[in-house]
Order: sequence, then structure tokens, then C-alpha cells
Amino acid sequence: MIYLDNAATSFPKPQQVYDEVLNCMKNYAANPGRSSHQMAIQAEMKIMETRDRICKLFNISNPLRIVFTKNATEGLNIAIKGLLKKGDHVISTVIEHNSVLRPLSYEVSHGVEFTLLGVDNIGYINIETLRKEIKKNTKAIIINHASNVIGTVQDINKIGQIAKEEGIIFIVDASQSAGYIPIDVVKDNIDILVFPGHKGLLGPQGTGALYIKEGINLKEYGQGGTGSQSDSMSQPKILPDRFESGTLNTPGIAGLCQGIKFIENIGIENINKHKKMLIEHLIYELSKLQYIKIYGGKSYENRASVVSINVEGLDSSEVGYKLNEKGIAVRTGYHCAPLIHGILGTNHIGTVRISPGYFNTIEDIDKLIFALKNIK
Amino acid sequence: MIYLDNAATSFPKPQQVYDEVLNCMKNYAANPGRSSHQMAIQAEMKIMETRDRICKLFNISNPLRIVFTKNATEGLNIAIKGLLKKGDHVISTVIEHNSVLRPLSYEVSHGVEFTLLGVDNIGYINIETLRKEIKKNTKAIIINHASNVIGTVQDINKIGQIAKEEGIIFIVDASQSAGYIPIDVVKDNIDILVFPGHKGLLGPQGTGALYIKEGINLKEYGQGGTGSQSDSMSQPKILPDRFESGTLNTPGIAGLCQGIKFIENIGIENINKHKKMLIEHLIYELSKLQYIKIYGGKSYENRASVVSINVEGLDSSEVGYKLNEKGIAVRTGYHCAPLIHGILGTNHIGTVRISPGYFNTIEDIDKLIFALKNIK
Repeated sequence: MIYLDNAATSFPKPQQVYDEVLNCMKNYAANPGRSSHQMAIQAEMKIMETRDRICKLFNISNPLRIVFTKNATEGLNIAIKGLLKKGDHVISTVIEHNSVLRPLSYEVSHGVEFTLLGVDNIGYINIETLRKEIKKNTKAIIINHASNVIGTVQDINKIGQIAKEEGIIFIVDASQSAGYIPIDVVKDNIDILVFPGHKGLLGPQGTGALYIKEGINLKEYGQGGTGSQSDSMSQPKILPDRFESGTLNTPGIAGLCQGIKFIENIGIENINKHKKMLIEHLIYELSKLQYIKIYGGKSYENRASVVSINVEGLDSSEVGYKLNEKGIAVRTGYHCAPLIHGILGTNHIGTVRISPGYFNTIEDIDKLIFALKNIK
Repeated sequence: MIYLDNAATSFPKPQQVYDEVLNCMKNYAANPGRSSHQMAIQAEMKIMETRDRICKLFNISNPLRIVFTKNATEGLNIAIKGLLKKGDHVISTVIEHNSVLRPLSYEVSHGVEFTLLGVDNIGYINIETLRKEIKKNTKAIIINHASNVIGTVQDINKIGQIAKEEGIIFIVDASQSAGYIPIDVVKDNIDILVFPGHKGLLGPQGTGALYIKEGINLKEYGQGGTGSQSDSMSQPKILPDRFESGTLNTPGIAGLCQGIKFIENIGIENINKHKKMLIEHLIYELSKLQYIKIYGGKSYENRASVVSINVEGLDSSEVGYKLNEKGIAVRTGYHCAPLIHGILGTNHIGTVRISPGYFNTIEDIDKLIFALKNIK
């Protein structure tokens, strides 16, 4: 199968990821941070190594500010619910995923105000509009770094600067960028960074994390055993324990560790370059087909490895079905982003989303193009 | 290493579990329930198969009432926070794990009342006391099926009957029993059953689930993309989607599926019998050592595969350290259960917890006993 659904989850993973998940399960998958025997210590050390590698990747100085989650959605819930309270105002965008829009929408029904910035027809927010929407009670700006529908990459550096100037907390959802678009929490003034482990970071499903800058105190999200302060019925205040109740996904995190190590070895700029090359070729070839509508920008700069299209006269799900028959995996429908479709004009049809990964080749794109040429 | 820390997480897992995690990661770890291509469908089918096997194990009729979580703690948070509201009264016990006590304690600080039933010196609650503590506003009874500190197994059948008679919701934390002590949600009148996937069910870490009986509507716990009703900014009401936002841990759940299949093949009664035999031998041998204090009952009936001890004159952590040096893994300290230590008289010393699993042998127990004989 030619897998072009990497925006949902990356596939395949590097061989080292498989090897380490297996090695962990077979040799040291004890409960990290709980017992003090050798296997539990080894598990804990692997968890710590992973925190360190995440820190290095995003220029974070304190590994204890990394909280492991089951996916990015959980991290976004921890951030949004932990930060906002009644009367707060938050700025986000219409291009967000439901992992942001649904928790925000819930908060709005509990007394939080929000402004959702519109985007232009290729998916960019207007920085000046953002500036104008800031109010006295604006507590946070939450931005999808790269759109999971049309691949638009927002200028988080500029937004972070504004947030810093205005004393507003800046939350970045890096679900579609972490692992191949450089992110620097210091330079980009990011206060909270949320990302999955199983997409660009090439780890297994069941992994994700968030970074919470020192000085930001979030309310508890859930409670439970943490292996720390066990004689107390109150949730610990210390990080990461405060948000890591219950047994961690040790084999998953061990695999994620190897995914990040793979990225370090290849170099994030080389991964980015490879994906850009694939996207450039894809858009170039798609542009030749008159009956294909490409959504979002056609530029190859500032875009993630995601392209949404539709084929004239065919429902997106029909295109997905036919491609699947030819051994090509894409995603069709709404991609859990409800508001962007109003802007794209795809409210009732959705889109066909093509998202190549690091392990795809030019030949994979050519096979997709060939299949699309013969789709009707 | 002789691993006797199965109450923290079971180790090793059956070979089939390793094989399936790897097979899933290498061949079908797409995003289940999102895309409609072959790999995503295969992932979704494996998730459904796992729901079915869980149903069969606990006599649940509707697989869509099984919600996958990252661990039992998350399931308990979903249950406790989803159910209780200001003014409600809940009955639980002093023997609970922090995965129950901490969320409950949080709810108490938000207007919920609770009664924590005491236990006798071998860890059992008194059923008549339970009956007397029921008030008009008692919404739920939450019971740890088997204690993670002293292995006491409560009579959930009798408690379930009382809950049914009184119209109270019965929540069972089966963290230490699921997979080897039979549980039948119909016969035991269980409304909500919570369990980890990585302990008695022999799946990988990063897995857990809860069963919510039809007719019980829990408040949202978190929100996010579910792959369903994607055009809406509200969390879906349908189960399991309501509580399964974001990407599931597909390889972990695939492994869990094999863990349950392994239990089906061996037979839960044979697993139980093997563990009982180990515990019987362990307690018999420990009883001969005058300087060892065994906490909880010495009977082999109605107890899980967990024994807590202390060695006269040695701190529990020192015992753990010395056993680890001899290649034996146990857990020492408080085991995330803060209140039970007041009853055991181990408030400042904790205990040494020995928890054999299905893959342990009589020889493992003998080696532990030998080590304990020479520990001073």
C-alpha cells in the first residue's frame, strides 16, 4: 500500500522504533517512577532520556516541564482547561482542529469568551487583525502551527512576539509540524507547546506530550497515583507528576525516543527538504489536471506536507474509495476541522487529503497522479 | 531478574502480545475510525475485536459501551467526574488507591460529600456498615475489587446487590482483579467497570478501559476530534466516541487483544489457580520466618496475588534494595494508597509488596524466601 495519510499518523516508523518498543516490552517494561528495582529504574531512565531529547529538539531547558500524554488532544485539554477561567478571553482561529475547537467551545459554554480569527483564501491569519482583537482580558492565543487540512504554516515567531509584548500566554498546537518544521520555544516565545508523538516525531500511537513554561501554573486536569507524595490525597503540584497520573505508556515512549533520535540523525532540515520536494512535485503534477481543485496555497514555502483536493464530479469519499482500490491510502471527509470547510466551500463534500511522509518517494506521488488521471 | 511486581504492571507478557504489537506497528497502525483506506479499516477492526473480547470476558452485551483509556486512572477520572455533581454523596473505602481517592478528594472540595468505609484488620469492609451509610443523596458506591496493598478481595456481588436494591450506581475498580478473578457485570450488578490493560489482562502499558452501562450518561471529560460528527464543535454524545478523543493507542490495544485471547485460551480459572498456588506457598513459607510481619489476611481464599510484608529492623526500601541486588524485583513504600497504612500501622515505613504473576513459578518464590532468609 502507498501510504499518504501521514497527517493522521505517520507510517511506517523507522526500524529502530519497532526494535525499541519490542526491546522495552521484552526487557524493561516495568512501571517507571514507582518501584526501585532495576527494571523500573531502566524504564524511568528511558522516560528521562525521551524528555531530554524532546527538550533538545525544541530548545527547552528543563526536562521536568515535559508532560507525557496519550495524544496531542489530551495535551490541548490539559492546557486549555488548566489555563482558562470564567471571564477570560482567548484568541484562536477558524482553521483549528477539533482538538482545540471542542475544548474551547466547552469553555465558552462555561463563561470563557473567544474570538476565532478568520483566514484568507489560502489559510493565513492576518497578524494586524490578531493585534486588534487583543482585549484587556485576553489570557491566551492558541494557534495551529500547521493546518491539518491545507498545510498552511502560520508565522508563530511573529505571533509569539506579539503575545510576549502583550503579556498573553501563547499556546502552539504543533500536531502537524513537530518533527519536521523547526520550533524553538525561546525564540518563538512559546509558553505551552503541544504535540503528538506518533506523527512527525515518528513514535508509536498512544504517545504525545506538552511543554509548560516555568511560571505557568495550570489547574489539575485529572488526579491519581503518581508514585510521588503517595501519603497524600491531594494531587502533587510538582511537574511532570501533576499531569502524569497512572502508569505511563513506557514502550510507546521508548519508541518515541528512537523516533526523535532518528530525526536527530537525519537532521530536521533534511526531513523538511525531502517532504518539500514531494509536495512541490505533487502540487506541480496536480496543477496539470484541470478537473482537480487544489485547496489552499500552491506555494511550496511555509506549508506542511498536507494537500487537500477534490475531483470534479466525484464525492471525496468516492475518490478515497477508488484510490484505496488501487492500493493508495489517503484520508477523505472533514478531517476533524469543522470551520475551515466554510472558507474552502467544502461544507458538504469534505476534501481528499494527501499527506506524504518522510518515507514516501517521488514514485509514490507519480503512482497517485497516475491513479488520479484514471479515476473517472 | 525474578519479577514479583505484577501489581504495578504484569511482566512478561505472552509472546503473542509482543508479536501483535509489532505486527500492528509494521502492517496496520493507521488511524482507526478516521480514514476509510484498507489499513485504517484493519486498525478499526482490531479495535472492535478487542472491544468484543472485553465484552465476552465480563459478560457485557454492547461493545460500544467499552471506552478505551490510557490506563485505569483515566477511566476512574471519567467515571467519577462524569457522574458526581455538587450535593451528591458517594461511598468508598479507606483501602482505595489514589486513582480513586484523589479524584474523589477533588470532588469533595467541589461540593460532593463522601463516606470512606473503614476495613477490619485484614482489609474487609463490613457490608452492614455499608448499608447503614447509605443516604438519600448517595449517588454511587466505588469499590476497589482487590486491594493493591494487601490483596483483599471485596464481595462485589453482595455490594452490587445492595446498590441495585437502593438504586445507587455501582463503580468497580478492577485494577488488581481483571483478568484473573471472574467478574460478571450482570450478575454482580456493576454499572461502571474500570480496569487497566497492562496488569491482569496482560496487554502492554498505555492501555486501559471502562465499561459504562446503558442508561448511564456521564458528563464530558475532555473534548477533541473523534472522527465522528466532525462538522460540529460539540463533543458527540454517542459512545465510545464521547470519551475517545484523539488517536487511540492502536498497537497497544492490538497487544491487549492478544493478552485477552491468551487468558481465554488458558482459562481464567487456571490462571487464578496458578496464582493462588503461588500465594499459598509464599504465605506458608513467609509465616515460618519470625522476623517477617505479613499484613492482611493469611487465608488463600478471596485474595488477589498481592502480599505486603515488612522485615523486623529493616526499612522497606532497604529490603527492596537488597532483594534487587539479588535479582528480585518487588515494590516498596506506600503503593499510592495513603489511608490503608494507618490501619496497617505502616504510616512511616510503608511495606514490601510481593505480587507474583501468571508467569512466576514455585522456584521464583523459593528464591525470594531464600533471599529473605539471608537479608540481614
